[in-house]
Amino acid sequence: MSFEKVKSHKSFEGETAFCLHSSSVTKTDMKFSYFKPKTDKIENIIIWLSGLTCTEENFITKAGAQLHLANTNTMIVCPDTSPRGLDLPGEHDSYDFGSGAGFYLNATTEGYKDHYNMYDYIVTELIPMLKDEFKPENFSITGHSMGGHGALVIGLRNPDLFKAISAFSPIVNPTAVAWGEKALTGYLGDDREAWKAYDACELVKSGKRHVKKILIEQGLADEFFEGQLKTKNFEDACTDNNQDLQVNYREGYDHSYYFIASFIGDHIKHLIS
Amino acid sequence: MSFEKVKSHKSFEGETAFCLHSSSVTKTDMKFSYFKPKTDKIENIIIWLSGLTCTEENFITKAGAQLHLANTNTMIVCPDTSPRGLDLPGEHDSYDFGSGAGFYLNATTEGYKDHYNMYDYIVTELIPMLKDEFKPENFSITGHSMGGHGALVIGLRNPDLFKAISAFSPIVNPTAVAWGEKALTGYLGDDREAWKAYDACELVKSGKRHVKKILIEQGLADEFFEGQLKTKNFEDACTDNNQDLQVNYREGYDHSYYFIASFIGDHIKHLIS
Repeated sequence: MSFEKVKSHKSFEGETAFCLHSSSVTKTDMKFSYFKPKTDKIENIIIWLSGLTCTEENFITKAGAQLHLANTNTMIVCPDTSPRGLDLPGEHDSYDFGSGAGFYLNATTEGYKDHYNMYDYIVTELIPMLKDEFKPENFSITGHSMGGHGALVIGLRNPDLFKAISAFSPIVNPTAVAWGEKALTGYLGDDREAWKAYDACELVKSGKRHVKKILIEQGLADEFFEGQLKTKNFEDACTDNNQDLQVNYREGYDHSYYFIASFIGDHIKHLIS
Repeated sequence: MSFEKVKSHKSFEGETAFCLHSSSVTKTDMKFSYFKPKTDKIENIIIWLSGLTCTEENFITKAGAQLHLANTNTMIVCPDTSPRGLDLPGEHDSYDFGSGAGFYLNATTEGYKDHYNMYDYIVTELIPMLKDEFKPENFSITGHSMGGHGALVIGLRNPDLFKAISAFSPIVNPTAVAWGEKALTGYLGDDREAWKAYDACELVKSGKRHVKKILIEQGLADEFFEGQLKTKNFEDACTDNNQDLQVNYREGYDHSYYFIASFIGDHIKHLIS
């Protein structure tokens, strides 16, 4: 096995596990969790990307996804949100940059470029490792907030790798909001052209597409909706560029895992159908 | 309203809420969480009692109960496991006594007797307050580990108050195990006769009964099964004294919330049927 299973809990007759491996991409240890239902054959693996401040633990303990996956052939895998165990300049100073805030990109700035390559980590290391280990027929990708951004960007840039893409409360247009500007400057420097490779709106505008309808869930009581998420910008980009998209705006729902838990069942259906 | 709603998250069209009130029983503020489905009429309230080290948050964030309750007329209420904000001698020195470890009893030892009265808090304050506020037709009670002990003890001593009783991994015989001996000594002193009022095995032996079958879920890979939980002692007491009991021993399951999440749906059905 290419990773070490650190903890395992029997769940719904399957297994919730926490894993560790040495990453050649981030040059650190990396952690991920998964739920694997009791089945002889894994058909689908859903990659879940978490948001700011999260680790590999948040989704797998809070979203209630196991119940939806218990009698399927689908497992879900939840990587940590950044490399850990480093002490780069400014890495631990704020919740929205550095540790817990990898933004699923490949950094080019000094120090960060050697480790903060979460885009390559997911695409070229984690997914191939999962393919070797579990031999699924399909991958799909989803995530929340910063992780919704990650799912849209990684999904749109690798359309043949994923059967489907969805997101909860995604940062769809990081080049246009404060969270994105801070992170993209810190990881990529001041050249705004370079930022576009990690902006879902810009990717759709530049011709990136996924053949399947993208599903987005967005709470209307989400405190970050207006300022940081800018869902409408992605709707406009998809409409203007013929990317099929469904956005479910949900009255009264916020940015929390209580929102995610309420609709993860619908997203799992979308991601494996 | 007799309590303040501190946080509220729309969940499954209903509401996950965190509440605070000033308790006349513990003479401290007390916290509890609840999930209330979208319904015009609450028929049942399930009281969930958590285990050692837990707060009002653990169950409501980790057990996935909301999904099972979403389209019912049943809400679930999860009180904190002890008074907070005090600084009694030894109160914060260990995980299994004092804060986070109230053991759902009425203390008689110096200092603790003025505040650590979680039995009375549940029975004479929380439940009447919930009755006033939500006007349910029935209450049921369940819990995990120390909270499973609490559910059995409070349920057996107040059989008319609860429609049904269940427990996950309960400490069924605290007078006979290390966790119980430490807590009962600390809260009640050295008189072992006084301990029996808070021991489910002793209560059944002394004639306490519930008219409905009690349901217990117990993982066989639970690290505390042999040493602290002693499920068999309760089975024997119930058999010898004609208390209807069903214990589901579950191969491979441990003491965690992954275990609880796997079977909470079955327990909810039992508790409201």
